[in-house]
Amino acid sequence: MFDSPFKRQVEKLLEAAGITINGPNAWDIHVHDERLYRRIIAHGNLGFGEAYMDGWWDCNAIDELFFRILRRRVNKKLTPFVRLVRSLAGHLFNFQIPSRAFTVGERHYNTGNDLFTAMLDPAMIYSCAYWEPDDTLEQAQQNKLRLIFDKLGLKPGMKVLDIGCGWGGAACFAAERYGVEVTGITVSSKQAELARERCRDLPVTFKLCDYRDLSGQYDRIYSIGMFEHVGHKNYRQYFEVIDRCLAPDGLSLLHTIGGNEFSTCTDPWISKYIFPNSMIPSASQITTAYEGLFVLEDWHVFAYDYFLTLKAWHENVEHHRNALSAEYSDRFFRMWDFYLLSCAGAFRARLLQIWQILFSPKGVTGVYRVPR
Amino acid sequence: MFDSPFKRQVEKLLEAAGITINGPNAWDIHVHDERLYRRIIAHGNLGFGEAYMDGWWDCNAIDELFFRILRRRVNKKLTPFVRLVRSLAGHLFNFQIPSRAFTVGERHYNTGNDLFTAMLDPAMIYSCAYWEPDDTLEQAQQNKLRLIFDKLGLKPGMKVLDIGCGWGGAACFAAERYGVEVTGITVSSKQAELARERCRDLPVTFKLCDYRDLSGQYDRIYSIGMFEHVGHKNYRQYFEVIDRCLAPDGLSLLHTIGGNEFSTCTDPWISKYIFPNSMIPSASQITTAYEGLFVLEDWHVFAYDYFLTLKAWHENVEHHRNALSAEYSDRFFRMWDFYLLSCAGAFRARLLQIWQILFSPKGVTGVYRVPR
Repeated sequence: MFDSPFKRQVEKLLEAAGITINGPNAWDIHVHDERLYRRIIAHGNLGFGEAYMDGWWDCNAIDELFFRILRRRVNKKLTPFVRLVRSLAGHLFNFQIPSRAFTVGERHYNTGNDLFTAMLDPAMIYSCAYWEPDDTLEQAQQNKLRLIFDKLGLKPGMKVLDIGCGWGGAACFAAERYGVEVTGITVSSKQAELARERCRDLPVTFKLCDYRDLSGQYDRIYSIGMFEHVGHKNYRQYFEVIDRCLAPDGLSLLHTIGGNEFSTCTDPWISKYIFPNSMIPSASQITTAYEGLFVLEDWHVFAYDYFLTLKAWHENVEHHRNALSAEYSDRFFRMWDFYLLSCAGAFRARLLQIWQILFSPKGVTGVYRVPR
Repeated sequence: MFDSPFKRQVEKLLEAAGITINGPNAWDIHVHDERLYRRIIAHGNLGFGEAYMDGWWDCNAIDELFFRILRRRVNKKLTPFVRLVRSLAGHLFNFQIPSRAFTVGERHYNTGNDLFTAMLDPAMIYSCAYWEPDDTLEQAQQNKLRLIFDKLGLKPGMKVLDIGCGWGGAACFAAERYGVEVTGITVSSKQAELARERCRDLPVTFKLCDYRDLSGQYDRIYSIGMFEHVGHKNYRQYFEVIDRCLAPDGLSLLHTIGGNEFSTCTDPWISKYIFPNSMIPSASQITTAYEGLFVLEDWHVFAYDYFLTLKAWHENVEHHRNALSAEYSDRFFRMWDFYLLSCAGAFRARLLQIWQILFSPKGVTGVYRVPR
């Protein structure tokens, strides 16, 4: 009875997005615990996600649910206290200082190689793929790598740097198909280990290293899905590192998730359960950071491709659920589903973007068309 | 004799860019008046350009000269007082207040339709073309228009707004080839007049109107080579106007010259003689201005295409020089040559860029590839 004003508030918000509590559609939510409403009003997405993990509600299509909520921008009407505090904290402190750099490596990317092996494509590329009709996930990931390496104009013998190399899939592909020599860096010991194992007999070196400690000079530098861990206070430093390590006639490609608005914090549920200290850059934060150091060569935007990718990952996890259930609890699976599907909805709603941004130190001269 | 320290300074700067005073190469400068050196040191490009207009020096390939100076970034070593004052003024005052909006119209675009008729392609498109090998200027301008209208996805019956329509070439092309209904606005009375004459019998309307006075709603909005007159203090307002006038499922394309660094002033010679109150935006100035209002859909960069365009315009003026010389002085031609060729060099050196930036209010949903 005490919850009824909260319930009415939540109902009204969801109604605006076409969602009915205990309704008949796949995107409707089914409430098992009435305390849910108070938790949503008090804690926004953090409360919504934690309540899902606790089994307080269910939904047959969480991606559809989030697509509807975020497309109507219903989330903007919720500005709970916790989000405010988080935002203030982002302003005052630099969460991504080097001593914390390895936190995300230990927390997320060491979650267990078995989970990622089951979820990802055979090359274990943990970032947005680039889809043609009827592609498999494997094919779509290869399209993405080709897209990046063609934009970079990789030529045999080039020295290439991969910042945030994951399990080495991109680095191996570049070495194997483009004849280049790659150095990959990561902050996850388990990633480095598996990457070394998978790329034997190729001119690829993997190092456990923070990007700020990089030295040497490379013909091409790329990072795929790593910038989200850099933190807004370090964006300038990130580009200064690229500036220091890139040949004068070099090219650099940044593949990152992007947000539509300037922000210094991330979704609190994502930050607490999935990517500690992560942060989604906006276009003004990126441009401000590189201006004076680089010339922009191309800014490619896509988003629906990540919806497709996250859905494919979710399907793979479902498929291997029985095999994985010895190691992971039901609560973990609920957390993981919420992560993959809420993000899928956010990309489909265009709240989040994928950006591939190509830079050069002084501008490529002569006739130049960036391949797509 | 008093000038010799200035001469040595200028010689040293030019030498760094591979330019010899009175040397044998096409890009070398031939000095007729020794006061040139003092004028360059005191007034930078303003003095250099005015001295050219006064016949103090000559060069067989001004575009090559500027390419060499700007590629080596020699210009950065010159920070004359006049540039500083200009920059301060740009910070303190808003030169582009509406009462001044028509200044550029009266000063530059009314220069004389005969000059522009001689210089431009038959459709009189006064902005960077998009070149395929062996294209004529006319063909390259049509490529550019197709590129823009394909990105905008024009469909028959759509209501389209052209901000800064020039002599109506783009509006006519859109109406004729894509079956849309276009409203074009300009701040030049002579442009509006000629545009109306040239687009008779097409569903195109031209208005003498400042962009800030726009109302109504359009399916698509574009501006080609107009943003350079907006001024940094008004960038946000420009996007607010687009936001107000664009349909919720609309698209907007901005075709503008872009600069590599944040700036609040323009080259003083260009400002004094060619485009009063013009200003080249940087990427951070644009992103800061649109963030929160629009979702970025694509950012296309090219530059060498403007080198080719400016060279073609220069060639056309040369070709019609005799016919035009009744109306224009030799000093005017020297001014015009310096304008076209120094800009050509700046684009080739990648000091300046052409940006085509595509926006939507909330992000296009579903599979979406921006055509190029």
